[in-house]
Amino acid sequence: MILREMMPYRALNEKTLIAYLRGRPAVAARFPRGADLTVKEVGDGNLNLVFIVANRDEPGQAVIAKQALNYLRVAGESWPLTRERMRFESQAMQAYNRLCPGLVPEIYDYDEEMSLMVMEYLGKHEIMRKALVERRRFPKFVDHISTFLVNSLFYTSDFYLPGVQKKEMQARFINPHLNKLQEDFVYTNPYITSQENRWNPLMDAEVQAIRADAGVKAEIAQMKAAYMTHAEALIHADLHTGSIMLNETDTRVIDPEFCYFGPMAYDVGAVLQNLVLNCLSHFGHTADRAQREEYQEYVLGLVRGIWNEFARKLDGVWKENPRGDLMPPRYWESNGGTEAFAAFRRTTLARLLQETAGHGGVKFLRRMMGIVNVWDITSIPSMEKRAVAEKAALRIGVRWLMDRNRVTSVEDLIRVVKEEIAGISV
Amino acid sequence: MILREMMPYRALNEKTLIAYLRGRPAVAARFPRGADLTVKEVGDGNLNLVFIVANRDEPGQAVIAKQALNYLRVAGESWPLTRERMRFESQAMQAYNRLCPGLVPEIYDYDEEMSLMVMEYLGKHEIMRKALVERRRFPKFVDHISTFLVNSLFYTSDFYLPGVQKKEMQARFINPHLNKLQEDFVYTNPYITSQENRWNPLMDAEVQAIRADAGVKAEIAQMKAAYMTHAEALIHADLHTGSIMLNETDTRVIDPEFCYFGPMAYDVGAVLQNLVLNCLSHFGHTADRAQREEYQEYVLGLVRGIWNEFARKLDGVWKENPRGDLMPPRYWESNGGTEAFAAFRRTTLARLLQETAGHGGVKFLRRMMGIVNVWDITSIPSMEKRAVAEKAALRIGVRWLMDRNRVTSVEDLIRVVKEEIAGISV
Repeated sequence: MILREMMPYRALNEKTLIAYLRGRPAVAARFPRGADLTVKEVGDGNLNLVFIVANRDEPGQAVIAKQALNYLRVAGESWPLTRERMRFESQAMQAYNRLCPGLVPEIYDYDEEMSLMVMEYLGKHEIMRKALVERRRFPKFVDHISTFLVNSLFYTSDFYLPGVQKKEMQARFINPHLNKLQEDFVYTNPYITSQENRWNPLMDAEVQAIRADAGVKAEIAQMKAAYMTHAEALIHADLHTGSIMLNETDTRVIDPEFCYFGPMAYDVGAVLQNLVLNCLSHFGHTADRAQREEYQEYVLGLVRGIWNEFARKLDGVWKENPRGDLMPPRYWESNGGTEAFAAFRRTTLARLLQETAGHGGVKFLRRMMGIVNVWDITSIPSMEKRAVAEKAALRIGVRWLMDRNRVTSVEDLIRVVKEEIAGISV
Repeated sequence: MILREMMPYRALNEKTLIAYLRGRPAVAARFPRGADLTVKEVGDGNLNLVFIVANRDEPGQAVIAKQALNYLRVAGESWPLTRERMRFESQAMQAYNRLCPGLVPEIYDYDEEMSLMVMEYLGKHEIMRKALVERRRFPKFVDHISTFLVNSLFYTSDFYLPGVQKKEMQARFINPHLNKLQEDFVYTNPYITSQENRWNPLMDAEVQAIRADAGVKAEIAQMKAAYMTHAEALIHADLHTGSIMLNETDTRVIDPEFCYFGPMAYDVGAVLQNLVLNCLSHFGHTADRAQREEYQEYVLGLVRGIWNEFARKLDGVWKENPRGDLMPPRYWESNGGTEAFAAFRRTTLARLLQETAGHGGVKFLRRMMGIVNVWDITSIPSMEKRAVAEKAALRIGVRWLMDRNRVTSVEDLIRVVKEEIAGISV
């Protein structure tokens, strides 16, 4: 025990992980005594090592071990990071286990000194991004992800929590180093010369035009200001389709290391925007026009369903549980209160949709112009076909961002996508 | 030393304070060895004990000792409070000493265990609220308070600070218990039945009408949401004219115990709204019409001057120092950047003015309907004359709040005041 406490952080590998895990009672208890464990590194993340640890005699018995690295992997070892992010991820996962049970993996162990978390192995789930490229359908997804969004956001916001409790929770999620990565890589670096940016050379003109557009730049700054200052709820802050594992009956959100108290609409925008990117990617992946159009319609139906279910569930749970300090029940119960509460919920949901368009819009741009592109698009072999999808993504992103204050329904967002799709001839 | 560390918190009085101060080297050093010290309790605050400690042989040698109480004084001992607020006040004062030197009292000592701070005695200054009732004029005030606002807000915001540094500072100013007081007493309790509310019975109908106005209630909730979540900069959060001491050449801001990272416009709105309340109070204090109108014009000139100087100085210092993570210079230096930066500063200042109207508007209401009324008004002997000022204050508050999104210049705010004044016949 003393020995372990004195041992400094070290990045583990397939060889050293097993000895480490045998010293962790919570993990050891998950396997039969003396089990022959196999380890396989599977991470393709940018920030962490991820291993599957399984019982060789019974491969269904398995756990995931995830350890934070000291540097940003995608950029080589040159970009140092604090390992503290694993603390944030484990804190968020604990909150999600409580608020969204069954929608995140179960957490078995967390070792702060080693920045290492052990959790449920999701062997029957797949990463959503790849499944959508394969045109798979997930009948429960809209229901699951809208519940995840509502439960994780509402129950950590001032809508529900007493003010003191919310702020004490917020203090435990001040996550400045990971915030800085998103601030730079989403809202700043893609729009200036920065060596890590990459984009399809076939849309160089479009990228340069956005970079030189003063109006777009000013609005991106507005959204960045909101990202940096609007501490509404505990947000995941990286909720793309690569952070969702699922199958036909089950959905799990993973990788909340960027979590902090931020604008609710950022998480909603991330989901919707990643679905639209997938929709566009089928210009490269699905040659058959009828098949493509049908699947694109399906994906846009997910966009519609998620927003509408999110809005419906948020309104319902809020109406039933207005116990947070913003505002307490006695405010809404007084004279004129019922009407005022309905108006406040309505304007709040309208604002959240507009901010969803704004953050989602910026995220289209950063995915096309910045350091982290998306596999849906980059896996298209033909650069010409990629450019078709990518140019549409840029146009949609600019329109969602610049027209956000006129958005009154999710249909407005879908209409923009459909108009840009209609302009494509492939 | 050990003895003092073991001694628990106790509220001091005029008798026990001197012995305590003699054990504090930083304070003892301010008086000649063996000086005969006099102590006088002068606090009329709601939350704290305040003493003047002076050298009997040389009364100009003096300091202020301020100690936090365990309870909210205005409501008797029944409203318990954490003494931690003196830590927040001393932290804010240290920040202000650095950012706004000469605009706050100098801090000599802070004892965390005793929740006691010792600071500069401002013997040549008076509380602004009383001086304005006496129709005093302060030729430096616009310049001083606009500099205080710009320096305290800009240099603690994402406009100026690196993101990590700002968030680490923010973490030290998570002040949930004092936040809750303002949240309740400004944005909630005045608009519902709550025993501590008090108002002039002659405007009972107006108070009840506001409480039953669903539109007003919904907008108050919007402003409360901003107060609770928009962590833009270190704000004072109680910057009324009773928190300002001044004379013709010097201005000092005191009492920042409510400080936290909140919306910049709350501080600006507090100053402007308190000036307008004073302007209205002269319907009770200044019988001579010409004299009254001239002074009211002077006070509205302060409102105009403060906003315009605040906007001019903020724009200037931001333009010269865009080194914060929102956005860094390289973003504004790139193609289209100069124009984008100008647009972003312009829209940000426009937004701050609208939020100033919103928070200021709510604060008119709370002052007329809630627990803490203002002396400018309550010192008017005739309840009829009080009601004249108070009803106008309610109307102005509702208009600032409800019309805030159409405000484009401080002249819009002044026009509302002048229209309501013009409707008064005294």
